[in-house]
Amino acid sequence: MCELLGLNANVPTDICFSFSGLMERGGRTGPHKDGWGIAFYEGKGCRTFHDPLASADSEVAKLVKGYPIKSLNVVCHIRQATHGRVCLENTHPFTRELWGRNWAFAHNGKLKGVKRWPLKYYKPIGTTDSEYAFCWVLDQLRQKYPKPPAKPETLWRTIKKLFAKVDEQGVFNGLLSDSKYLYAYCSTHLAWVTRRAPFGEASLIDTEMTVDFAKETTPNDVVTMVATRPLTDNEEWTVLTPGDFLVFHEGISVFN
Amino acid sequence: MCELLGLNANVPTDICFSFSGLMERGGRTGPHKDGWGIAFYEGKGCRTFHDPLASADSEVAKLVKGYPIKSLNVVCHIRQATHGRVCLENTHPFTRELWGRNWAFAHNGKLKGVKRWPLKYYKPIGTTDSEYAFCWVLDQLRQKYPKPPAKPETLWRTIKKLFAKVDEQGVFNGLLSDSKYLYAYCSTHLAWVTRRAPFGEASLIDTEMTVDFAKETTPNDVVTMVATRPLTDNEEWTVLTPGDFLVFHEGISVFN
Repeated sequence: MCELLGLNANVPTDICFSFSGLMERGGRTGPHKDGWGIAFYEGKGCRTFHDPLASADSEVAKLVKGYPIKSLNVVCHIRQATHGRVCLENTHPFTRELWGRNWAFAHNGKLKGVKRWPLKYYKPIGTTDSEYAFCWVLDQLRQKYPKPPAKPETLWRTIKKLFAKVDEQGVFNGLLSDSKYLYAYCSTHLAWVTRRAPFGEASLIDTEMTVDFAKETTPNDVVTMVATRPLTDNEEWTVLTPGDFLVFHEGISVFN
Repeated sequence: MCELLGLNANVPTDICFSFSGLMERGGRTGPHKDGWGIAFYEGKGCRTFHDPLASADSEVAKLVKGYPIKSLNVVCHIRQATHGRVCLENTHPFTRELWGRNWAFAHNGKLKGVKRWPLKYYKPIGTTDSEYAFCWVLDQLRQKYPKPPAKPETLWRTIKKLFAKVDEQGVFNGLLSDSKYLYAYCSTHLAWVTRRAPFGEASLIDTEMTVDFAKETTPNDVVTMVATRPLTDNEEWTVLTPGDFLVFHEGISVFN
């Protein structure tokens, strides 16, 4: 199993605190030693960091932990390989362009038979079922909508259906972003929390670290975190149930 | 004008030394203060670092300078904006997937009218003429070859023709890689040097730094560097002439 972490906010927000907790699970408090990756959106641009090394030992992870890249959308993943060897091209998140937007995707779970599904536009570079499923989803979107649908809800409903279809092939917890929205699908494990005023303290489960968000934020900030398992022990995380699909925009859930 | 740097080698090689020289040109010895980016190939995987900040001041650049990521192919770019505002999505190198391969592209120069050319499969995310031209080249390749041509030379000749066509629109010094090969096109300025046994010392023009490659290499290593202008003052760089197109594989020029 892998661990997912997503952020969606209404103001550019750094993920240093939550990232610090998650990275401990990469080889120290957790068994996810087979690489990690993160995609930060800045406007339409997307900055990715990938490392096939255990996150707890990674130089690049140290940089990301200490360097506050501020973003409205983040997709992060640490990997325990179940399918596909440990190498850079099998390291999530995967990215592709559709409709002139950067799409980033990370997956937790295992799928069966997905690789026999036909692909038209997008081809996987690595050998994971995760990247294959991502290519298939984008392929379907592209075939159905040569241009993005006028109403965002149309797109959201279609993504939900496509994710549910992939989920039938096994376990499919997924985080996806197109630079505007963060899409979260729960197959077995996914939880989320929204932080907003009045902000309080949060303390990480995986490492001794506490942050007082009141000092780091303004009263208008709204920030949602999505993770495989709650990362803090003193906040109220909502645990999703199988089949749940949420869309986040500007820090709040706009579709479920 | 921007600065390009490429590496192609027969053994995984780090680019720390040449990168150190180039990064000085990003805001210190050169005017290229509008961001920088680098793509490292590791097998079929591609690791990219992008920063819209001046490279001389960039935290991410410090990491890349000090952290020896070893690669057979590298495409690097520092930017002085001529077209398109300074932001992440306008920061080279640009990447796209074609035939299940990662393609990375960086451009130095200015093009006129390219943005009126039709695009079918690939859409730009940012607003640069460079990314548009890259999308157009991949679009043409994809339309002509739904699968990669059996003979690499067929692909090389086509890329040369496409680059020459783009070059007609202005200035087009370009570096491209598909994870196997490094493609270099000279419109006005591009130079290259191949390092092989017996290795000697090299000293950077832009910063006081010397490296003794004899200590860093094995006798079988062959490493080619391509750059806008020579980066060292005691090696014999070959300066390309307008219209030159070279393909490098395992450190040597295999097509021109």
